[in-house]
Amino acid sequence: MKAVSMMLAGVLALGVTGVSAADDKQKDAIKYRQAAFTLIKGNLGPMGAMVKEEMPYDSEAFAQYAANLAAVAGMADDGFIDGSDKGKTKAKAAVWKNRAEFDKQMEEFQKLSGELAVVAKSGDMGEIKPKFAATAKTCKACHDDFKSK
Amino acid sequence: MKAVSMMLAGVLALGVTGVSAADDKQKDAIKYRQAAFTLIKGNLGPMGAMVKEEMPYDSEAFAQYAANLAAVAGMADDGFIDGSDKGKTKAKAAVWKNRAEFDKQMEEFQKLSGELAVVAKSGDMGEIKPKFAATAKTCKACHDDFKSK
Repeated sequence: MKAVSMMLAGVLALGVTGVSAADDKQKDAIKYRQAAFTLIKGNLGPMGAMVKEEMPYDSEAFAQYAANLAAVAGMADDGFIDGSDKGKTKAKAAVWKNRAEFDKQMEEFQKLSGELAVVAKSGDMGEIKPKFAATAKTCKACHDDFKSK
Repeated sequence: MKAVSMMLAGVLALGVTGVSAADDKQKDAIKYRQAAFTLIKGNLGPMGAMVKEEMPYDSEAFAQYAANLAAVAGMADDGFIDGSDKGKTKAKAAVWKNRAEFDKQMEEFQKLSGELAVVAKSGDMGEIKPKFAATAKTCKACHDDFKSK
């Protein structure tokens, strides 16, 4: 979320026990965003399998995955703080060079994830399928532009 | 969340691209829960700093952290699937041996995180402080019993 990103830039390095050194902030931010993407993938995976009928559709589980995805989608961008383009990361320098475009794509992903979470509650695969596809498309688009292979 | 845990046991290994080998399921589950704890820590940290007045209280940011925490608290236990006591994990065997107690503690953490997210919206530090302390206490209690140093 954008409002919080500004905050996080200053505080992500604060562990439960105190303040980390300034040069650990970037490392922590990278770990934070990678964790968010791990959860995003972990929830997208079974939804994709259900949409593709590789596993049986369970409407309750699907709705929970979609809710999880929408929640974590709002956290992923918080980790892209200034200076976190260096280190163990696949983020391209383009994230910071073309920040407005990156933010736009992130917001699109967050918006669609939120819509998917709503549609998922309907249990209507006819509505869910296109919304899931549109959401997954925002992942691919952003990876193409902003993530190294 | 419990209902989904059952599901996840079978599907966490499903990446966006397909089905992983059975022996990768446990690895993926470990990564998933560790990612959840990374986000939990990343959101608890700044809340703790605000509660301890190590950084200025920002009610909007605090409420967002608390909402993030509540959302991710519901995901953490999904990664403790059977067989994931081996590998790169600090989870003690006790998680699986004393599963009922582990689940009880997780549910307490989830319950309090949810309550903290509600209280955080009030912006009243007099209410927030004890609820945050109670929530953080559930972390420590569970780590003492179920996490290696």
